[in-house]
Order: sequence, then C-alpha cells, then structure tokens
Amino acid sequence: MTEIKVPATSANLGPGYDTLGLALTLFNNFRIKKRNDQQLKIKVIDKNRNKQIEIADSDNLIAQAYKKYFNFLEEDLIGAEIIEEMNSPLARGLGSSASAIIGGLAAAAVISNQLISENDFIQLAVQLEKHPDNVVPALVGGLTINFNCNNNFDYYKIDVDQNINCILLVPDYELKTEKLRSVLPNEINYSQAISNLSRISLLTAAFINKDYNLLKTAMDDQLHQPYRKKLIKGFDQIISEAYNNGAKGAALSGAGPTILALAVENEKLIAEKMEEVYNSLAIDSTSYIVKVSNSSLYQSLKEEISKDV
Amino acid sequence: MTEIKVPATSANLGPGYDTLGLALTLFNNFRIKKRNDQQLKIKVIDKNRNKQIEIADSDNLIAQAYKKYFNFLEEDLIGAEIIEEMNSPLARGLGSSASAIIGGLAAAAVISNQLISENDFIQLAVQLEKHPDNVVPALVGGLTINFNCNNNFDYYKIDVDQNINCILLVPDYELKTEKLRSVLPNEINYSQAISNLSRISLLTAAFINKDYNLLKTAMDDQLHQPYRKKLIKGFDQIISEAYNNGAKGAALSGAGPTILALAVENEKLIAEKMEEVYNSLAIDSTSYIVKVSNSSLYQSLKEEISKDV
Repeated sequence: MTEIKVPATSANLGPGYDTLGLALTLFNNFRIKKRNDQQLKIKVIDKNRNKQIEIADSDNLIAQAYKKYFNFLEEDLIGAEIIEEMNSPLARGLGSSASAIIGGLAAAAVISNQLISENDFIQLAVQLEKHPDNVVPALVGGLTINFNCNNNFDYYKIDVDQNINCILLVPDYELKTEKLRSVLPNEINYSQAISNLSRISLLTAAFINKDYNLLKTAMDDQLHQPYRKKLIKGFDQIISEAYNNGAKGAALSGAGPTILALAVENEKLIAEKMEEVYNSLAIDSTSYIVKVSNSSLYQSLKEEISKDV
Repeated sequence: MTEIKVPATSANLGPGYDTLGLALTLFNNFRIKKRNDQQLKIKVIDKNRNKQIEIADSDNLIAQAYKKYFNFLEEDLIGAEIIEEMNSPLARGLGSSASAIIGGLAAAAVISNQLISENDFIQLAVQLEKHPDNVVPALVGGLTINFNCNNNFDYYKIDVDQNINCILLVPDYELKTEKLRSVLPNEINYSQAISNLSRISLLTAAFINKDYNLLKTAMDDQLHQPYRKKLIKGFDQIISEAYNNGAKGAALSGAGPTILALAVENEKLIAEKMEEVYNSLAIDSTSYIVKVSNSSLYQSLKEEISKDV
C-alpha cells in the first residue's frame, strides 16, 4: 500500500488566465494497492459530504489517467485498487479534476514502478485536462507560471512564502468549468490584455520579492472575472469584505465559484467576514485557511520509485 | 547652465505591449539656461546626422512639456534656452519623443526651481505621450512595469543586472509609431493574450532572478510583432542571427524598426551578425551596445532642486 498526496490548486489568481496556478496544503490522498489481475477498482470518498462512491472503470479521470500512463509506457496494464480520500470540494475551482488526473498518473507510476520524465508526465496530464494551470502545480508544487512552447507545456516555479495564508471561500453549489467558459467572449481588446499584462507582471514581482502590498492592484483582472462574476452571487461584495478586513489580494479561484483571498494576518476574521456575505444571501458556504504547498509530488515519486528499484 | 541627461528607452521587450520599458545608457543631454524674458528658445542637435535644428516654439514636444509643467504649477512661464544634444536616433522605437517630453518637464522643474511629486510628473508625461512605457523608465530608470490604476499611472521598478548588454540594431529609415499602430487588429483572441501573459510573467521572473536562459521563450510575442514585422524588412532573419550567435533574448524595440537583443556575452559578434542581414538587404544600419541605466533622473532632480532651495 502506497499513499500519494495530491494538492488542491487555485488557478488564475486574477490576471493569470490559463497561466498561473498555486498548489495548496489541502490534499487529496490516494491509497494505492496492486492487484493480481488487470482490473482497476476505484473508490472515491468525498470527505466533504461523507459520501463514498464506487466508480465504474472507464469514464473516471483517475482511471483514464492510470490507463494513459500504461499506454505511454507501451506496457500491459497492471490492475490496482485506488482509493481517493477527497478533501477538496468537487467542481468549485480548486482543481479536483487535476487532482484526479495527477493521482491516476502517479498511481500508475507507483504500480508500474517506472517514472516517466517530468516533462512527459506534464504532457499526459495536460492532454487529459486541456489546460496546464491546475495539473502542473498539483505535480510540482508552489506557484507555477505555465507556458506552451511549440506545443510542449513547461513551467517556471516560484516557491511561495509560508507567511501567506490562502483563504478559500467555497459556496455550497457547483459550477461546471464548461459553463464558466461559455460566458467568455470570443475576442477581447488590447486594453483588456494590457491591463492583465501589467497585473501578471506585478503579481510575479510581488511573489518573488515578497512585496505583498502590490497584490491588490496585481490581482485585478479584466479577462475573465468581469464575465464570470455574473454567475457568482455576491462576488463584488465578498471581494470588498476581504480587502476591508485586511486581505492583501483576492480573486476567483480558477473559474470559480470559490473565491481566494491572500493575507499575511487576520485570516480568520477575513474568512468570517467573507462568509457573512453568503449568510446574508442564504447560501451555505465553507471556508478553509491553508498555505501554499511548495513541495513537489514528482520529486517524492522519484525518491519513492528509485528506492523501490 | 544645468545639464540633464535623459535616457533613451526600449519598450515592450516582446510580450510587454504598452507595459514594460527599459532605460538605456544612451543619453539625450539637455542644456538649460534661464532667460530674462518669457521666451522659449529650443535647439536640437541631432548627433546622428550632424544636423542642428532651430525649433519654432509651439509644436515641439520639449516646448509643450515645458509649458505644461508651468501650467500645472499655475505660474507664469519663465523663459529659457534649451539645447538638446540628441544621441539616440529619431523615430526608431527608442523613445525619442519620451526623451523630449521628460527633458522639457525636467527643464521646467529646474528653471522654476520647483519639483512636483513623482506621480504628478508621470501623469503629465503620460498625458503628452499617451502611453507610459517610454516616459516612465526615462524618468525613473531600470526596467519598469507600468500600470494604470483608476486612471493614475504608476510603476514598479526592477534594477537590471549590469552584466546584461543591450544590442540595438537601428536601420536607416524612420517608421512612425502611428503607422506601426495602424497595422494592429482591433481585437485579439484569448490564446494570443494567454501566450503573452505567460511570457511577461516569465520575463519578470527572468530579470528579478537573473535567470537569462528564460529570455528566449519569455521574449516571444503574439500581440504586436506578428503584425508589425511585415513593415520591418529582415525581421525574422535578424532575430535568428541574434539567437544563433548567443543572444539570450531579442524583440522589437517599442514599435520598431529598431531591434533589441539582450546578451551576457558575444555582444559585438551578435551586433555584427545582425547588421550583416541589413547589409545583404542593402539597408544602412547602425548598432549600439549599451547597458540598462538604473539611476533615476527624478532622484537627481530632487537632489539638484533641493540643493538650490
């Protein structure tokens, strides 16, 4: 039995549409055991709803990823039992599908006892997820700048200061990424792009230089939040409450509906005040206060697998 | 007689359209002398063409900036004689108009013996230039991330390593910014924006962390170069020559036609090889090898003017 911890992730961070992603210390745990046949048995225990789901093989992302890995190895599938203890909420903009993909690939690496290169690992994950900004930080940790260079996805990693608290306000309703993508226009203008270019550049400088007073300006977005916030009740008010109570920055987590606030102090107060907005709208919500997970799952797989050889 | 040195500047740096600007150790020198009447006498000596131009008062940017400063002070104009020794080439994408604006504003500060706040100084300059990416680094030095926050232009400055050489390849023809702006489309798509978002974020990290192997990917652009390069003969070939001979990064300087390459070694060879492309196209050109000017003209005005008080 091997246990793999895959972090939940928060993408975009305001201006970094399909580019930036942050790994969080909120982990989905995968317990993996080899089977003596070629069958894949997958179980997901959703800790947020105390629900246990037996999963039929083929259409599940964990299974798809697991098979894709063996396919890449050009080897016969080895059967396994995979139990995901899912601690991050599903379909809320916290990378639950990226977790499933990275968990499935990592499980196949462990069961096959063969670790493919990090770059190959990333390509397989992006093929399944379609965009890199959750799968990459889930695999390598920290804050990643994800980029596509000649159809090869690559990243640059920034280790994030542990003084930063990430407040996640998760409302009790799902919003599918497809729906949240469908509200975006086909084209944008230069002034929107320029605004985000300046913000993502500032945001990068803010994290590297630990200059968190830049975050409020840096986390402003013109490319997706203005369209998506119409689907997210109380958005502007929640962002205001975050800032009014000391948050350094605030933005949609991924496509939402989770809202991410960053703070170096007053994190509990900020979380409470943000939740109060949902209370006043009669929407149930849960808040989490976590840190950035800078450790790399790929590195730990490397240690694990070379140890076994 | 006071002398003010205003740096030439290179904007965009590939992905940083209307956002990033770099101050260069190629200076336009302004010699300033108070007159006893309210007249403004301006002379520009173009060192590149050994040409001296007497300038009629009103339509010149130096004069416009000088008057704007007095207007802002709400005081009567004090006459002056301003001689600009222009070392940077005109209308080539090296911020000659930004130099004129900053020179005119700085001359008024010296002659009035009143220095307005740096933020006010920037707003006046941007009002004249329309965009911030040349005037701001000309005033404060270094690499600046320029941003507009609620109609107030502000910046974040990154001091750039003196190991970086900036190779400027300047062809012997002018291209007006207006023409170079007119070839841009009205709208762009998300994938173009995402590409530049990832690149400008990488570029910011590359400069702060002195990680220059990132520059080649980081200086790729999808928002303006693909359109403008049609107006710039030999563009792709010159960029290739720069990389093939050891440049770390290369891009249009501003809207062009100057091409900027960055290198930590082989700078002379790179300049020669880039120039050879123009030679083969029977286009005259000049190359410059300069550094980034990190010093702030605003700071030196502050010392100058407080010394005088």
